[in-house]
Amino acid sequence: MTTVKHMKWWGWGVEGVQFEYHNKPNFAPFVKEAVDLDLEVEPADIDAPDLDRLRLPDSLISAAQLARLTELVGDAHVTTERLERVTHTYGKSIRDLLRLRDGSIARVPDVVVYPGTEAEVQQIVDLAVDQDAVLIPFGGGTNISGSLEPLPEETRPIISLDLGRMNRVLEVDEQSGLARVQAGTLGPDLEEQLGDRGWTMGHFPDSFTHSTLGGWVATRSSGMQSDKYGDIAEITRGLRVVVPRRTLVIRPLPGTSTGPSVREMILGSEGRLGVITEVTVQIHRLPTERQVLGYLFPDWQAGLAAMEEIASSDASPSVTRVSDARETGFSFATRKKGKKVSGAVSAALMKVLERKGWDLEKLCLSFIGYEGSKRHVGYEKNLVRQIVRKHGGILLGKGPGTLYDQKKFDTPYIRDFLLDRGAAADVSETAAPWSRLRDLYAGTVAAANAAYREIGVRGWIMCHLSHSEHSGACLYFTFAFRHDDNDPIGRYEVVKTAIQQAFIDNGGTLSHHHAVGREHAPWIEQDLSPAGADMLRGLFESVDPKRNLNPGKIVF
Amino acid sequence: MTTVKHMKWWGWGVEGVQFEYHNKPNFAPFVKEAVDLDLEVEPADIDAPDLDRLRLPDSLISAAQLARLTELVGDAHVTTERLERVTHTYGKSIRDLLRLRDGSIARVPDVVVYPGTEAEVQQIVDLAVDQDAVLIPFGGGTNISGSLEPLPEETRPIISLDLGRMNRVLEVDEQSGLARVQAGTLGPDLEEQLGDRGWTMGHFPDSFTHSTLGGWVATRSSGMQSDKYGDIAEITRGLRVVVPRRTLVIRPLPGTSTGPSVREMILGSEGRLGVITEVTVQIHRLPTERQVLGYLFPDWQAGLAAMEEIASSDASPSVTRVSDARETGFSFATRKKGKKVSGAVSAALMKVLERKGWDLEKLCLSFIGYEGSKRHVGYEKNLVRQIVRKHGGILLGKGPGTLYDQKKFDTPYIRDFLLDRGAAADVSETAAPWSRLRDLYAGTVAAANAAYREIGVRGWIMCHLSHSEHSGACLYFTFAFRHDDNDPIGRYEVVKTAIQQAFIDNGGTLSHHHAVGREHAPWIEQDLSPAGADMLRGLFESVDPKRNLNPGKIVF
Repeated sequence: MTTVKHMKWWGWGVEGVQFEYHNKPNFAPFVKEAVDLDLEVEPADIDAPDLDRLRLPDSLISAAQLARLTELVGDAHVTTERLERVTHTYGKSIRDLLRLRDGSIARVPDVVVYPGTEAEVQQIVDLAVDQDAVLIPFGGGTNISGSLEPLPEETRPIISLDLGRMNRVLEVDEQSGLARVQAGTLGPDLEEQLGDRGWTMGHFPDSFTHSTLGGWVATRSSGMQSDKYGDIAEITRGLRVVVPRRTLVIRPLPGTSTGPSVREMILGSEGRLGVITEVTVQIHRLPTERQVLGYLFPDWQAGLAAMEEIASSDASPSVTRVSDARETGFSFATRKKGKKVSGAVSAALMKVLERKGWDLEKLCLSFIGYEGSKRHVGYEKNLVRQIVRKHGGILLGKGPGTLYDQKKFDTPYIRDFLLDRGAAADVSETAAPWSRLRDLYAGTVAAANAAYREIGVRGWIMCHLSHSEHSGACLYFTFAFRHDDNDPIGRYEVVKTAIQQAFIDNGGTLSHHHAVGREHAPWIEQDLSPAGADMLRGLFESVDPKRNLNPGKIVF
Repeated sequence: MTTVKHMKWWGWGVEGVQFEYHNKPNFAPFVKEAVDLDLEVEPADIDAPDLDRLRLPDSLISAAQLARLTELVGDAHVTTERLERVTHTYGKSIRDLLRLRDGSIARVPDVVVYPGTEAEVQQIVDLAVDQDAVLIPFGGGTNISGSLEPLPEETRPIISLDLGRMNRVLEVDEQSGLARVQAGTLGPDLEEQLGDRGWTMGHFPDSFTHSTLGGWVATRSSGMQSDKYGDIAEITRGLRVVVPRRTLVIRPLPGTSTGPSVREMILGSEGRLGVITEVTVQIHRLPTERQVLGYLFPDWQAGLAAMEEIASSDASPSVTRVSDARETGFSFATRKKGKKVSGAVSAALMKVLERKGWDLEKLCLSFIGYEGSKRHVGYEKNLVRQIVRKHGGILLGKGPGTLYDQKKFDTPYIRDFLLDRGAAADVSETAAPWSRLRDLYAGTVAAANAAYREIGVRGWIMCHLSHSEHSGACLYFTFAFRHDDNDPIGRYEVVKTAIQQAFIDNGGTLSHHHAVGREHAPWIEQDLSPAGADMLRGLFESVDPKRNLNPGKIVF
């Protein structure tokens, strides 16, 4: 069958890779303290869920439709196998994982197709419209906002269109710094094909190892180095999108004044306007020098103030990130035995800081990245150093940054590890103007804690600031609580709802870079105002009046 | 009546200000050579056209409608006077000026209203929809793409809604670098109100002195310093837009992943989705140091190559601009008597360059701007200096840049001066990837020259590159020809059409920052593909099914 690889159907990442805590002496005590979960008590059953025990609805695809799809893309690229259908049902939100483990699958795709060309995509889209089927495009399946799931009440056949075979860099325009890339290309494949030629796209979301370019565009993704490279909306210059009967072509342009931006309508459209097949992206020559340095701030307010000042300074680092005290504690708790976060974050340093009057409970770890020529990196570091110092921060050096670089894609494995042991963890992120960030932070933490009280658990919430822009930044929260297999989804909803509402109430958006899907759709009218939500409805309706294209996402 | 000031109804700028050529000894010979026009022959009649001789259609506004509007905004803010109606009919394109001078006014607004509040705007919009009238928002009236004109065949009453009374900076968020500003605020008023508090928005389009914030947003404007401050799409963070029955509110956010960007739908919407009443914009502290330096390159290819390399370098200047040899010649021709472009561009320098083997006919003048701390400006200048030198360029110094800064808003006056004397001049600009710019330039010049041959005139076309982005830049063409009052509009259309088609055929967009309006709408399907144009149609139709909001603009 297909050669397209997927993550395991019931969790993050590939089989056989998992988070290991025995070599991290501080982790178990940390988890016990944070969410009252005792890791020393081995859970009864942490084997993978059993696919054969899942009850799936029968496939609604007709024999004639199946024959037609097979004719279009070839026998090897159409499947109604259980594993494939389940793999293509959800993304990887905590809600998704809980449902899969629980066997709560109201509706799955009836067939999965793997087209190899844009012409095949066109024929599949047209077939879906002609036959009044539902079409859901699928990239890497990493989405955590419910952008992929079929509507439970859907009675029409559902086709999952997996772009995984369309995974090549087609053309590099070295003079312009542009590359034309197929939408199904996974992050590592994309960077490898570009890297071989000395280029990078510079887009590294947390999901990087398992997500695709098309998925990034469809969900308005943002990567860790967006301060330098821009988010996907900025990186995306040209597009090819298969819509019913024809292909939308946005030519690669550095700028244009052609009315409301159609390019920006495709960005974040989550399959509701068609299937993205090709993206022309900005690429950059691999920098001569690249450094991510670690810093420590005495507290969250000092860290925030420093990031704010960097954003309006002459400095332009590639990464700006500061964790609150809780996330800093989490980072320290995942240190390996005998390994300091770096030589710098030693017990000796802690003693020095204590003598200086720092409250070690309030420490905030920060990472700031620099790229360019050796001289430019030196110049930028110096600009930042003065600002860090002004706000009482100290430089730790390269060690923590190197570690951050190595570990940055591993966090989802910790989530699965915790889930196996009875704790649910997820992330919610937002963005707001600098002047709102303090209240937004305090309001969100307070809302989460109130929700934990409501559901009667000792919950955890931690945060970092990242993705600095001129007028504001992203606050990225991670939250966790012990679910004890006692209505975990219901309890998750209480916490998630509290956090989302706190975002909106404090001037934040419903999500900075995880899209809307179904998870965040309840807040879209509060975010965009009813008139804005109706513009989205009008746009979707005009392209897709019968709601064949991933219906029910973004706006209900 | 109203206190809102407008430009003269028949040309650019204010009464009494005009281009003066007698103190510029090289100008008359230059014009003779360029477009075969003899300035020594004084034209028969260069008095202002006579408003009283214009034949205007009768106002279609009913007494009841007029009474209602008067009730809404007050007697002083509603008018059906001839001058007001004519002033609100067109923008300031060469087509507009030719039509006004010719008395070709098929349709004018039937009434002009000046609301003072958003609530009044809401009532006017609702009245227009209820009464099936047409509503055309009006800012400064500088548009050159036909975005303002009523459709000749329109039989419904037309209301021109002038935002001129809504001209205040409402709020400055110094911490976030954001200002909330009323949409009718003119450029100089905006910068003065911000400047008093030590801030700038940094948006300086050629039209700056007479255009408004709302107009900039509605037409996706871009300013001369967009390399640093971004174009208006980037500067615009929050919006309030009156749509039928309610107000669309986009909260100011540094970034978001809330589906297709509604913010980017309003940008460039030219009144077709509603009336922009407030914009929250990014602002920056006035820089400690600001320099615009002049450079000379031996030819156009060298200048282009230098700009291209700067764009992918570690340098980030605030202005990057290089003129082709013809535009350089034009700049030199507008020098005042006894005044060099600077001390540096002297006859002595020319001799030196000649001895170095430069072809003085091919000289290209360039301006590069720097802002920030004194040290940062020094650092940036040094980075740029190395690149300029590599491409054979030389630094002229501050003189030409200072002059450029002083004269940058004056060019439209030259256009009117030429028009009075029988020559038509206009501008067309585009943007494309760096790899396409050479062919785009050559193709456009060739197309214009072919068009001049077709209409049998000696025409002129000159160009500069500006608004550098990572993957490409804007090419800004100015063209002129002697019309001899012999079907000037028809001949203009031949030239304009040739230039626009050359843009599209060579990978450029129909306009980089002058919007679509009616002038560029014929190319929108070639620019966005038919599917893209239909998305715009679908969006407009969903908000405005009866086509009451500035119909016929962007897409027909």
